Amino acid sequence: MRATIMHGSRDVRVEEVADATILKPTDAVIRLAAACVCGSDLWPYRGADAITEPVPMGHEYAGIVEAVGSEVRSVRPGQFVVGSFMASDNTCEICRSGYQSGCVHREFVSGSQAELMRVPLADGTLVATPEVPDAKYVPSLLAASDVLGTGWFGALAAQAGPGKTVAVVGDGAVGLLGVLAARLLGAERIIAMSRHESRQNLAREFGATDVVVERGDEGVERIKELTNGLGAHSVIEAVGTQESMMQAVRSSRRGGHVGYVGVSHDVNLPGQEMFYSHVHLHGGPAPVRGYLPELLDLILSDKIDPGQVFDLAVPLAQAGEAYRAMDERRAIKALLQM
Amino acid sequence: MRATIMHGSRDVRVEEVADATILKPTDAVIRLAAACVCGSDLWPYRGADAITEPVPMGHEYAGIVEAVGSEVRSVRPGQFVVGSFMASDNTCEICRSGYQSGCVHREFVSGSQAELMRVPLADGTLVATPEVPDAKYVPSLLAASDVLGTGWFGALAAQAGPGKTVAVVGDGAVGLLGVLAARLLGAERIIAMSRHESRQNLAREFGATDVVVERGDEGVERIKELTNGLGAHSVIEAVGTQESMMQAVRSSRRGGHVGYVGVSHDVNLPGQEMFYSHVHLHGGPAPVRGYLPELLDLILSDKIDPGQVFDLAVPLAQAGEAYRAMDERRAIKALLQM
Repeated sequence: MRATIMHGSRDVRVEEVADATILKPTDAVIRLAAACVCGSDLWPYRGADAITEPVPMGHEYAGIVEAVGSEVRSVRPGQFVVGSFMASDNTCEICRSGYQSGCVHREFVSGSQAELMRVPLADGTLVATPEVPDAKYVPSLLAASDVLGTGWFGALAAQAGPGKTVAVVGDGAVGLLGVLAARLLGAERIIAMSRHESRQNLAREFGATDVVVERGDEGVERIKELTNGLGAHSVIEAVGTQESMMQAVRSSRRGGHVGYVGVSHDVNLPGQEMFYSHVHLHGGPAPVRGYLPELLDLILSDKIDPGQVFDLAVPLAQAGEAYRAMDERRAIKALLQM
Repeated sequence: MRATIMHGSRDVRVEEVADATILKPTDAVIRLAAACVCGSDLWPYRGADAITEPVPMGHEYAGIVEAVGSEVRSVRPGQFVVGSFMASDNTCEICRSGYQSGCVHREFVSGSQAELMRVPLADGTLVATPEVPDAKYVPSLLAASDVLGTGWFGALAAQAGPGKTVAVVGDGAVGLLGVLAARLLGAERIIAMSRHESRQNLAREFGATDVVVERGDEGVERIKELTNGLGAHSVIEAVGTQESMMQAVRSSRRGGHVGYVGVSHDVNLPGQEMFYSHVHLHGGPAPVRGYLPELLDLILSDKIDPGQVFDLAVPLAQAGEAYRAMDERRAIKALLQM
């Protein structure tokens, strides 16, 4: 099969490798309907995460079950499934509390930018659609696997809801889908922070009522101006840098909620400022598995179209171009066609 | 009047100064029934906060209203009142959301280790008792002013409640009253982290079901052992150092809640560890004003006796000894008698 392998910073190759196979009786192997590149894949691509050996890339996936291990009960070959980037048993106490991404048996899933992939803990991880969906839904179902579920968690962690003003830091796919999630959760006002016209437009389409182009302290000032000097009730942080985290914390009102879902890199939160800010801080890897049934239903009933975040589609063989386009911010999110 | 003034690190003097007076029409002046030293007063005492000019000390108070400004409507001379260390208007949007300590007109109150003190924003800040209470209640009412209200906020921020296991980091008055709060909120199991026998005993009296004497990573391991390897649902942090904050975060299960009320000093929270910990983090200066009506009622109906945290009482003139005793951990909390 063909698979996307990262050999080092800015060195992504599509290569012929051995087919993914069942390794454990709880595994499934799925044939990808399509694949995609995640904003978090850019951390190693840009050298922010070290690559010490060739890494099979990709952790977002949707496709047809090809084979299952002997202990798998909830999915069978031929079914269309979507799963989360974090495999989980979905039965432990942490899973049952709603934190599948913190499952006591959790495993990072990888290797989805390929024709076939192995999914551990298939029973707990995969959700099958009622029938094999029309191909038009594939981008949105793929988005559900991570960026939609992550934006959803960000909005929930930020306690977005009726009567709330929600600010969103980050205009990548997760931030944009955080806007969508905030709208679905009933937020009154949604302020997207973005300086890119195409992303601003998609943010408005997803439900943003205001756009702020300033960043850092200037961005914070604009949020304060829009909120009677108080700051937003809810802030979704979808970048993961020191600047974006502090922008999020400072954009929040006292007693407000910051939901942070950008993968933290070199972030240090100053204790004293956090203390006096009175914010609620919650985030981390999103428990996407828990949201999948609801998200798949919203997609397949045409209530949401999160697949709009894909503004570039290239054949799998051109994965390198997909990475380049996202790195250079020419694309919000790139789809890899099989 | 006599007042306690800090002139520098470990230099606390009781001096004759001009009587506290009404400076603004929204002020009240109260005659203290008693005063006390707070754990947070030890930060400047120990040199962790710089003293650049003589500082009138004390921010916990209960006593009789002596005079009120022309705009004060809710209290009158002769009433017994309790207030919070943070003066608030109790009418702004932030106050109404339950964050009086983040009031848009907030002012730190100071100068309560004295015979008389000025309280700003008296209408929003002070709560009168139905009648002048018996002297036996004074220690508990004084505790309500800060350490009880702060422990209460810590327990609420940590989402202590039925079915929850609550760990408490810090065995000062705030931590001990966090134990009491967790019990009142219905927590199933309360683990006090303390290595001092007198504090362990009071923790048990306040409702602790377990005591852990280890600190740091060893303390975290003990909490994990007591919680099926998962960590506590709720952790109250009542110290404010890097070690105590990380002990609190690491003692929490994924998806758990850390309520931090120790005044942060030189704390830096590592973003990546926070991200992958999945904890909810909330804290800051406690909105004590919001809790005072309920806390005063619990005290005056003999349901709680938070005044037990006072294990030393000295005349105001001996405030220096009160500071020394707390600094050397000979006393949990020291009362200053008028």
